Amino acid sequence: MAKIAILGYGNLGRGVECAVKNSPDMELVAVFTRRDPSSVKIQTAGVPVLNVAEAPNWKDKIDLLIICGGSATDLPVLTPEYAKLFNVIDSFDTHARIPEHFANVDAAAKANGHIAMISVGWDPGLFSLNRVYAASILANGKDYTFWGKGVSQGHSDAVRRIAGVKNAKQYTCPVPEALDAVRSGKNPDLTTRQKHTREVFVVAEEGADLARIENEIKTMPNYFSDYDTTVNFISEEEFKANHSGLAHGGFVIRSGKTGWNNEHSHIIEYSLKLDSNPEFTTSVLVAYARAALRMKAEGVTGCKTVLDVPPAYLSTLSDEELRAHCL
Amino acid sequence: MAKIAILGYGNLGRGVECAVKNSPDMELVAVFTRRDPSSVKIQTAGVPVLNVAEAPNWKDKIDLLIICGGSATDLPVLTPEYAKLFNVIDSFDTHARIPEHFANVDAAAKANGHIAMISVGWDPGLFSLNRVYAASILANGKDYTFWGKGVSQGHSDAVRRIAGVKNAKQYTCPVPEALDAVRSGKNPDLTTRQKHTREVFVVAEEGADLARIENEIKTMPNYFSDYDTTVNFISEEEFKANHSGLAHGGFVIRSGKTGWNNEHSHIIEYSLKLDSNPEFTTSVLVAYARAALRMKAEGVTGCKTVLDVPPAYLSTLSDEELRAHCL
Repeated sequence: MAKIAILGYGNLGRGVECAVKNSPDMELVAVFTRRDPSSVKIQTAGVPVLNVAEAPNWKDKIDLLIICGGSATDLPVLTPEYAKLFNVIDSFDTHARIPEHFANVDAAAKANGHIAMISVGWDPGLFSLNRVYAASILANGKDYTFWGKGVSQGHSDAVRRIAGVKNAKQYTCPVPEALDAVRSGKNPDLTTRQKHTREVFVVAEEGADLARIENEIKTMPNYFSDYDTTVNFISEEEFKANHSGLAHGGFVIRSGKTGWNNEHSHIIEYSLKLDSNPEFTTSVLVAYARAALRMKAEGVTGCKTVLDVPPAYLSTLSDEELRAHCL
Repeated sequence: MAKIAILGYGNLGRGVECAVKNSPDMELVAVFTRRDPSSVKIQTAGVPVLNVAEAPNWKDKIDLLIICGGSATDLPVLTPEYAKLFNVIDSFDTHARIPEHFANVDAAAKANGHIAMISVGWDPGLFSLNRVYAASILANGKDYTFWGKGVSQGHSDAVRRIAGVKNAKQYTCPVPEALDAVRSGKNPDLTTRQKHTREVFVVAEEGADLARIENEIKTMPNYFSDYDTTVNFISEEEFKANHSGLAHGGFVIRSGKTGWNNEHSHIIEYSLKLDSNPEFTTSVLVAYARAALRMKAEGVTGCKTVLDVPPAYLSTLSDEELRAHCL
């Protein structure tokens, strides 16, 4: 049984706890938190919740630490720091900063003989895998990633910071006509606006200027100004009833040609439809935790990503079982 | 430039030739055939077509041999035999015999310090990858593979062997209601008949007993008796105009649950829509040929499958480029 610990007990930490419960080859041995441990109630019986300051004392009692934190400020600090003490895995998802994060984590992990796996989840993660597989196979082609329909936490937060907004949720939606055009093999050039729309549901404070709020949302640079955005003002009750979930999903599609004169078209499509983004993301994390420990047992150290992992390493089945039953 | 040779110049061999042309890191150096070489015209200028008996003389002039043959009788003999002389790759697709083929090829490749990759294509191949990824991530779930709409060569051949049949083509079609039920997360138990239908287009010989032919098709054990089959008699002209292609495709769908009480549902779907089955299959073969050579350069020998290959190894991009642009 691999001894797994969690650092950070929010949506992701809770998801890891569920995924470890479903893994016959793993057991949860500790949860570390930056909050007061007595304020954190976990679901697994008999597992201690400890202040993160105690983590170094667990150096020899944990096979792998799953770091559950935000990509903006938490993971760039935490993952290199804890890669010095443990084998670690994170879901760092700021695409533009992956090379920098990789370098920092790689140095810390290698210097201490650990394996570290970063940017594990579905994008980056499973979507990245599919982009690489499809582009390697259909060399002459074009790929498209669509997200949604699903909740963007960052965009919801940005709306909540507007004066007069009590609560808000933002959904990213792929444009059906754009998806159809891609699937038809037309290889369209699509602008940001043509690929996705944004739907916002806002609970406004009493007496707030709704027209001003709507305008501030729609013109917000980077977040909304490049998109067609719909703003809906709703009651607190409707918000709770219909907009409490964390569903998400998306599509990776590659359209490519083969043949001596590029006469044949092919479409590779990968899609996810997820009721719970954090629980799915952490299910991916836990499968890659298994792979990381297998690679470590073979002597691999340093930082790795999903692109470095043989698919068989994710499975609880042996190579022989996989060849006989899944290949 | 990796020096690639082809053994067998049918639909698959021609597909490999096209895929190698599209690979900037590979060159075709020879085509071996069991036919009279002077009867085989290839498309690549300046590449010799040779009788297969000459292959041993090319032992040191070829980095990898792509073996293009049938799974029933060719590959079980050819792949172990040529794994003694070369690094090899094949598309062996008789699922039930993979463990036996693996053992034979592994012994031959290991004894001679070569790498061999078997069962590369889309099923087995990309569909296998997706079954393993999805089952490892959604441990609590069920997976479904649907094939089609597409041409089954084996079923077409079986119909052509019936007396009075001049030509025939068989399409395997997924049942739309079954696909919808799976995508809805209902995890249905589906019989063979509920998953696929079979459509047959037959050109009959003049004066043939059409009712007898139709009955012989529909009652043929293993091939048709477990399916709802539609038989259409058409003219030679219509056959040539509308049924000359080798399109195929299919779906791998996993539906699974997460959460402390399995309260959240998720759907992972992978699909292919292919104008040319052999050209797509050989595009997969050529990407895995690249991976095989990278693994060989790292000292790996013996038999491997797609489940053993890190995705990054398929790409012409460096690990740094992949992390910066595809992850």
